[in-house]
Amino acid sequence: MNSISILGSTGSIGCNTLKVIDHLGDTRVVAMSAGRNVVKFAEQIARYSPEIVACADDEACEILLKELHRVEAKVPRIESGEKGLIAVAIHEEADTVVSATVGAIGFVPTLRAIEAGKRVALANKETLVMAGELMTAAAQKSGAEILPVDSEHNALHQCLRGEKHTEVRRLILTASGGPFREKSKSEIENATREQALDHPNWKMGDKITIDSATLMNKGLEVIEACWLFGFDAEAISVVVHPQSVVHSMIEMVDGSIIAQMGVADMRHAIQYALTFPDRREGELPPLELSQLSRLDFEEPDMEKFPCLGLAYDALRAGGTMPAALNAANETAVQAFLDGRIKLSEIAQVNESVMLAHQNSKGANMSVILQTDLAAREHAARLLSGKGAAHI
Amino acid sequence: MNSISILGSTGSIGCNTLKVIDHLGDTRVVAMSAGRNVVKFAEQIARYSPEIVACADDEACEILLKELHRVEAKVPRIESGEKGLIAVAIHEEADTVVSATVGAIGFVPTLRAIEAGKRVALANKETLVMAGELMTAAAQKSGAEILPVDSEHNALHQCLRGEKHTEVRRLILTASGGPFREKSKSEIENATREQALDHPNWKMGDKITIDSATLMNKGLEVIEACWLFGFDAEAISVVVHPQSVVHSMIEMVDGSIIAQMGVADMRHAIQYALTFPDRREGELPPLELSQLSRLDFEEPDMEKFPCLGLAYDALRAGGTMPAALNAANETAVQAFLDGRIKLSEIAQVNESVMLAHQNSKGANMSVILQTDLAAREHAARLLSGKGAAHI
Repeated sequence: MNSISILGSTGSIGCNTLKVIDHLGDTRVVAMSAGRNVVKFAEQIARYSPEIVACADDEACEILLKELHRVEAKVPRIESGEKGLIAVAIHEEADTVVSATVGAIGFVPTLRAIEAGKRVALANKETLVMAGELMTAAAQKSGAEILPVDSEHNALHQCLRGEKHTEVRRLILTASGGPFREKSKSEIENATREQALDHPNWKMGDKITIDSATLMNKGLEVIEACWLFGFDAEAISVVVHPQSVVHSMIEMVDGSIIAQMGVADMRHAIQYALTFPDRREGELPPLELSQLSRLDFEEPDMEKFPCLGLAYDALRAGGTMPAALNAANETAVQAFLDGRIKLSEIAQVNESVMLAHQNSKGANMSVILQTDLAAREHAARLLSGKGAAHI
Repeated sequence: MNSISILGSTGSIGCNTLKVIDHLGDTRVVAMSAGRNVVKFAEQIARYSPEIVACADDEACEILLKELHRVEAKVPRIESGEKGLIAVAIHEEADTVVSATVGAIGFVPTLRAIEAGKRVALANKETLVMAGELMTAAAQKSGAEILPVDSEHNALHQCLRGEKHTEVRRLILTASGGPFREKSKSEIENATREQALDHPNWKMGDKITIDSATLMNKGLEVIEACWLFGFDAEAISVVVHPQSVVHSMIEMVDGSIIAQMGVADMRHAIQYALTFPDRREGELPPLELSQLSRLDFEEPDMEKFPCLGLAYDALRAGGTMPAALNAANETAVQAFLDGRIKLSEIAQVNESVMLAHQNSKGANMSVILQTDLAAREHAARLLSGKGAAHI
C-alpha cells in the first residue's frame, strides 16, 4: 500500500488527489495540510484519518480542533505554519508527497520533501520557478523523483517515456489561450474578475486561473519544464490550442512529434504521478476523438499577453530572476483578485519588478527567500500609495 | 556502417529508402531487387553498387544486363524470380532487409529474411496479413526484429516506446479516408481509375492507393497491427482523420492517449526503421502545428466502405482467412486497375471468395501459398467469363 502526504488538501488539486485515492483503493493518506478552509479540512481528516495535519496558523488550528470535535473525528497531531507544512512534507511514513499548495508558500516544504528522498508529485509550479536549480540539485543528491502533476508537464513526462533526451529537438507546451484568446487588447485591459476567472476548459484555483488568463501560467510552465526535463528556453515552445485536448508534445530530431491527449481533468495527471511507473485503470470516461472533430493550433500573441515573454526573459536571465518574477506576479494577481488593479497591470508590475531586480546566480535558499520577499515588497509599493495608474 | 538489402527498390518505398540512405550517408546497399522497371533499376545499381541484384524473370535480367552495359555500371551478380528475391533477402552482409515489394510476392523472401535473423523494415503489409502467425513465430525463433515502415504502424511503434503492453487499452489506427470520404455510395460505385488513384495526402504505388480508396488498406493494417504488436481485433480501432497528420495513437488503461504526428512523407517511417533504436536528424521540414490549424476525426463509414468490415471479419476468423482475403483483393484491385470491374465490385469479389473459403488454422507456408493461389483462381473465375455484373 502506498502512503502519501498532501500539502494543500482542500484546494483543487488536493480534492482531486483524494478522489484519485478513493478510486485507487490501496493508498493511505498519512499527513495533510490546508490553509484556512478548516471546515472542509475537518471533513477530510474525519474521512482519511491522517496522523499529522497542519493549517495556516494557531488560530486556524484552534478552529480546526473544535471542528474535529464537532464532527467526532479522531484528532491527529496538529501543527501550524511552515513548521506544520514541513512536518507533513517529511512524515517518515510517506513515500509520496503531493505538493499542491498555491504559490511560494510551498517552496521550503517541497524542498524538504525532496531532500528527504520522497517521490514528489508536484502541482506547485512556483516551487520550480523560484528555485529550479536548487530543487533539481537536491533531487539528484537524495534520489528523490519529481513527477509533474501539471497536465502539460505530465503530458511531456508521458511523451518522453522511452525516448532519449539527446534525440528531442524541442518540447511543445500547449496553452488553451484562456478566456481572452479572441479578445482585443482593450477588452483584456478592462476585463472583470469574473471574466478572468471564467476559464473555458479547466476548473482550477483562482491564482492559476488568473495566470491562465494572462498566459503567465504558460510562462511559469516554460520555466518549470526547463528544470523538470533539462531543456533550455530555446528548446521549449508554446502553441495555443483552445480545445485543451493535446496536453503537450515533443518534437524529435527526426521530425516526429509525440503528443499526449486526454480529457481535461486533473485526475489523469494526479493518478499518473501516484502510480508511475505503472498505469492503472482510470475512472474517467475515455476521450472520444470522433466526437471531438476538431483541434486547432495557433501561435501565441506575445503582444496581447506580455507575461509569456517576461517569463522567457526571466528564464534566459536565470539566477534569481524567475523567483523575482514569480513573487511580483503572485502579489499582482492578488491585487487583481482584490479589485485593486486592472488585468493588464499585472504584466506592468511584473516587468517593473524584473527591471529593478539585481540578479544573483547560483543562489541558496536564503537568497531565494530574500529575493521573494524583496520582490513582493517592491510589487506592493508599486500597487499601493501611488495607485495603479502610476505603475 | 549499416548494410541493407532492398526488396523492391524501384517502387515508391524503395526509392524513398534510397533517399533516406543518401541522407544518412553511412549506410551501404548490398543487395536490391526490382520487377520489370529495369531502366530505373540499372541507374540505381550504377549508383549504389550492390553485390547481388534480382529482377522479375530471365527476360528482365537480360534487358537489365544490356542496360547496365549501356550506363557503364559495374555488373553485380544477377538473379531472377523468387530465387533472386530470396538471395537478396538473405544476403549475409545485410543487417537490415527493407521488404518493399507489392503484394504476396514478398511473402517467402521476407520470411527467409526473418528466419535468417535479419532486422526487417516491413513495408509489405500483405506478408503479415497472409502469414502473421508464421512470421511472428519465425521472428521469435531467430531473434529477428520486425520494424514497420507503414506510417500508421511506425507511429504505433513510436507511441509504444516505454509503455507496457498490458497497460494499453487499444491501438487507434488513423485513416485519411481516401479520395471518396465525402462521396456518395453511387459516386464511389462509378468512380474512375483516375479518381481512385488521386489520393488526397499520400503519394504511393497504385495497389495501395486503390486499397486506400476502398479502406481495404486500413483493414489490412488492422490485421498487420494485430501481428506486429500482439493485440486482438477488439483492441484495434480505426478513426478517419482526413489531414493524415496524426499517424496513429494508443489509448492507455488510464485513459491517456499517446499520438505520433508528422508530415505525410514515408521517409520518416523508413528512417525510423533503419536507425532504430536511435533517432537521427531528419532531412524533412518539421510539422508546423500553428500552420495546420485543424485536425478532424470521425468514425469510418462501414457501409460505404465494406472492405474494412471484411478485414475485421477475416481477422476474427483467423487461420488462412486473411490470406484468402488478401489474395482475392490483389486480384480484384488489378482487375479494377485494368478497367475490368467497378470500384465497388472489389468488395464483392473479396466477400465471395471469403464466403467460399474453407478456413484452416495453424497453417504452414505451403498451406498459406495454396490458399493464396486458390483464392486468386476463385477471384479470377468470378472476374472472367461471367462478367462483373454477375459477381
